[in-house]
Amino acid sequence: MRPLVEPHLRDLLPYVPGKPIEETEREFGVTNIAKLASNENCLGPSPRATAAVQAALAKGHLYPDAGAFALKARIAHLHDVAPAQIVIGCGTNELITHLCRALLGEGDALLNAWPSFVCYRIGARIVGAPERTVPLDAALNYDLAALADVAAADPSVKLVFLANPNNPIGACFGRDALEAFVARVPDHVVIVLDEAYAEYVERPDYEDAVALIRRRPRTLFLRTFSKIHGLAAYRIGYAVGDVEIMQILDQMRDAFNVSALAQVAALAALDDVEHIERTRAHNRAERPRLVTALEGLGLAVTPSEANFVLATLPESLPLDVPALNLALLQRALIVRPVANYGLPRSVRITVGTQTENDRLLAALAEIVGAAGSRT
Amino acid sequence: MRPLVEPHLRDLLPYVPGKPIEETEREFGVTNIAKLASNENCLGPSPRATAAVQAALAKGHLYPDAGAFALKARIAHLHDVAPAQIVIGCGTNELITHLCRALLGEGDALLNAWPSFVCYRIGARIVGAPERTVPLDAALNYDLAALADVAAADPSVKLVFLANPNNPIGACFGRDALEAFVARVPDHVVIVLDEAYAEYVERPDYEDAVALIRRRPRTLFLRTFSKIHGLAAYRIGYAVGDVEIMQILDQMRDAFNVSALAQVAALAALDDVEHIERTRAHNRAERPRLVTALEGLGLAVTPSEANFVLATLPESLPLDVPALNLALLQRALIVRPVANYGLPRSVRITVGTQTENDRLLAALAEIVGAAGSRT
Repeated sequence: MRPLVEPHLRDLLPYVPGKPIEETEREFGVTNIAKLASNENCLGPSPRATAAVQAALAKGHLYPDAGAFALKARIAHLHDVAPAQIVIGCGTNELITHLCRALLGEGDALLNAWPSFVCYRIGARIVGAPERTVPLDAALNYDLAALADVAAADPSVKLVFLANPNNPIGACFGRDALEAFVARVPDHVVIVLDEAYAEYVERPDYEDAVALIRRRPRTLFLRTFSKIHGLAAYRIGYAVGDVEIMQILDQMRDAFNVSALAQVAALAALDDVEHIERTRAHNRAERPRLVTALEGLGLAVTPSEANFVLATLPESLPLDVPALNLALLQRALIVRPVANYGLPRSVRITVGTQTENDRLLAALAEIVGAAGSRT
Repeated sequence: MRPLVEPHLRDLLPYVPGKPIEETEREFGVTNIAKLASNENCLGPSPRATAAVQAALAKGHLYPDAGAFALKARIAHLHDVAPAQIVIGCGTNELITHLCRALLGEGDALLNAWPSFVCYRIGARIVGAPERTVPLDAALNYDLAALADVAAADPSVKLVFLANPNNPIGACFGRDALEAFVARVPDHVVIVLDEAYAEYVERPDYEDAVALIRRRPRTLFLRTFSKIHGLAAYRIGYAVGDVEIMQILDQMRDAFNVSALAQVAALAALDDVEHIERTRAHNRAERPRLVTALEGLGLAVTPSEANFVLATLPESLPLDVPALNLALLQRALIVRPVANYGLPRSVRITVGTQTENDRLLAALAEIVGAAGSRT
């Protein structure tokens, strides 16, 4: 009998999601869980989005608008681009995978920093394309100069993803660094800026992706409704950019890839300025408080411009991440170990509500304190 | 500059969806539209599903369970299979495309009847795989003997989809015909039974897909929540079958391919026996009434076991489908022309509510009558 599938499909990289609340409840016999593992919006979904969805539930039997007419018009207005420059995905995850499928043909390679969002790597594996990997620098920032070196030197490089802020780090590079990178990347390389956490960024010199896509063909950026808008349950995100690529992407997606409720929710969320501002203000206040307290417990925290931080256990502490994670789960706290990102002594912690952060910090003080007393 | 994408991606087949209600309202300046174009459940979404979703809206900011633990357990119970034999998709459409991606490698061909659901053909185009096409017989039934001939004779055939009932026809074959087909198909060929309309089927000898997948490896079947459950807006369907194929499919899908609300809705819909039975009873009563009335107007109607019928204008009538369709749209009625399925004188009509069907029949009487008076 002939082989069932191409060999590379036998070796796909599974995505390791944050532990679901229900599963953790079942496994550890706990309730009142604080999930600080998936960078969801701790203030909940956009209330305007929820209200709009509520009003649309009676139409649950009708297929979505396959062309997402209303939502595309709204996003086009937001970024001052044409609707044809927009593709809506079942989360940006779908768009990342389709970009790999569309752009990584025979002989093409993905250029990827590591660690960065694992879905770029998963996408390359799904199409069986090789990955050229450039490590982050010692401070866990993108090494954009080294990435540009590879893009310029290796003609197989066809596609590069830059997560800014980067995930699972939180680090964010500025406009000048991006400009210098872009200037050195050959024109045939497609540059994708993944801006999942853009709305949280405070630095004034954050990239202007719209200006960049106007100037450079083969450039696009991704935005999601899963983060600041609080709509992760719905699965919706979008790409904006090069019309030629967008046309291909739009035909590659299944016609009804985005649910009607997600379209309704996203449309309302974009107008929910109160929710966006409230979330920003919360993050602006709570993240520094969390960072200071974590550092006070002896953990190293990487500077972050997102709604999460990367915290690293000192080598001197006789506590490893699996033990820390278990102790937190037993206290109904879910954070994200990132050993699969090559960071075995780190956890990614979402900025929670004040109460959630207090609970986490109290638990950490207890766990880290007990471990420290063993030294 | 190197080509942006592989040549076959320049030539994808767009899916032509039913006209959305909002778009039709805009274009024709009408309201109170009856959409009889997309085979949605005219009685609306499962009320239990809607209630369950309503209760889940406050969790809209949380990612779905990527493993769909609860829903898979429920479906496993329904069909008496193991959860590992189930993959949940963003509609069966996603699963169809992924099956083509997973199974149609270099040198492999799709075996397809025509007309049948266009997404099988679209899937083959997306991966650049050739399609061996076998036309329906003169009565628009699957020619299963001819399909088996091709499967047995052409070693490149790797994957065959059978929609039963077939779309856009409504015709349904029985168990014996399927058994005879399966007996002649080589073991290496993957057989996919698309049972999107299974719950509407009345014939007592309808296929037993579960028994078949137990007996024959490389066999699977698809079910959707978009039809009888009335959840087309949500995008959710599933595949059941061969564990080896399901494992690959499960890794090929994006981790969060199915929204949390869709999972909640589907779980509740499976228990909504009242809604399923009410819908079946409605279809059992209204479809024959619609068929009789359409035939009374001189249209030919193909026997259907689904919630739609294929109606064909007689050659003698000086009226073509574009003119008919325009006249219906102007009367706020949307049906589905199927010229893209090679049926230029036919429309697919969803069985609507009694009121909707009455409106359609009155409009058709007027339009067909006026055309007839010109002969």
